[in-house]
Amino acid sequence: MELLLLSNSTNHGRAYLEHALDTVTAFVGPGSVLAFVPYALADHDAYTATVRTALEPRGITVRGVHTSGLTGADAVFAGGGNSFRLLRDLYRTGLRDELRDAVRGGVRYMGASAGTNMACPTLRTTNDMPIVQPPAFDALGFVPFQINPHYIDPRPGDTHMGETREQRLAEFLECNDVPVLGLREGTWLRVSDGAATLGGPLDARLFRRAAPPRELPAGADVSFLLSEPAAFDS
Amino acid sequence: MELLLLSNSTNHGRAYLEHALDTVTAFVGPGSVLAFVPYALADHDAYTATVRTALEPRGITVRGVHTSGLTGADAVFAGGGNSFRLLRDLYRTGLRDELRDAVRGGVRYMGASAGTNMACPTLRTTNDMPIVQPPAFDALGFVPFQINPHYIDPRPGDTHMGETREQRLAEFLECNDVPVLGLREGTWLRVSDGAATLGGPLDARLFRRAAPPRELPAGADVSFLLSEPAAFDS
Repeated sequence: MELLLLSNSTNHGRAYLEHALDTVTAFVGPGSVLAFVPYALADHDAYTATVRTALEPRGITVRGVHTSGLTGADAVFAGGGNSFRLLRDLYRTGLRDELRDAVRGGVRYMGASAGTNMACPTLRTTNDMPIVQPPAFDALGFVPFQINPHYIDPRPGDTHMGETREQRLAEFLECNDVPVLGLREGTWLRVSDGAATLGGPLDARLFRRAAPPRELPAGADVSFLLSEPAAFDS
Repeated sequence: MELLLLSNSTNHGRAYLEHALDTVTAFVGPGSVLAFVPYALADHDAYTATVRTALEPRGITVRGVHTSGLTGADAVFAGGGNSFRLLRDLYRTGLRDELRDAVRGGVRYMGASAGTNMACPTLRTTNDMPIVQPPAFDALGFVPFQINPHYIDPRPGDTHMGETREQRLAEFLECNDVPVLGLREGTWLRVSDGAATLGGPLDARLFRRAAPPRELPAGADVSFLLSEPAAFDS
């Protein structure tokens, strides 16, 4: 499988996908047809138009799966937004099974934020609010571990009493013995032919049960994550 | 029904429940037996001991439902933590149905954070990570609207690209036509005999579909929320 999993689609102060545009263009390939999955946001046409505006100048033809399906697509891009809404619609439309078959069959898969959550075994490390109820939390499972997109370090001096991201992931690990890769904004994970590499300018943070969190340097080979065991609680 | 729904159990720089201790004591009643629901955290005994330390000096006897059930309880307190874990365990233990019967039959219900989420029709406006999958998002439904605990205003100058709380609630309202009461930390909602009143020093923020958010002043009568229509998306 060929995967490009972005932490986020928009970096602060930049245009949509601008921070990763060369990487995205090289991954999808100029001259390719990209099937865009817009279900994480409410307005599918508008969201597809946003992606088209960003990628067509790079020679990529963008089609919304809500109108055109996967037919003829060289690559798929699942965009960010609310991951519960996205997963519900993947089940509702039957696209979840279609995507699993297509990507295992060679169609390239790119995700950003909620779309990156979908590439994991489950939805369980999303940051999103559960605004709708998907029939299950099982997602696409293109990688065997979990990713936390938009990973954010604790803010010094914060007086808000909601859990930090690190506390949330510690709670995940109380219930599930599954590695979690925290991808900071502006970074991504590239999986190619059984190898996994960090991309972007920042380190990632790896969380495992019964071990202190560990920084993984920008650009590191993290292929070991592709063969670690994972045990989800029911 | 008699309900006390706290945004949070610990305010910044204060001891557990300290910011609301007089209100909690008056609600539960000195001399009462309180059944504590510890399922939102992993260590049920330790969590019950924390609540006991806070409330026994006020003449309240605290028993964990994981050891003592609801028998003989005058009041129930569902504590904060992870609301997905809490709801899963309410289903798993059968306590969800027991609690619904008990509270409708006169047992007083107090919640904090995740425990306040439980008093709503669904889990859909929690802030928590979906670390486990409950069989459904339907919660206890003691009030007909949704509450967002730990409500936090956008941080000026924030460069993190994750959704603000207000954006998350706007996405909820895209999918569900249900009022959401944002309770800022340090505040609560008191429901008594068909009337609802805001408590604590800060205003609350009300979100409704197709209307701008609205500030509701500290101490306000918000009984109108008990009779508004609610329509959840599937």
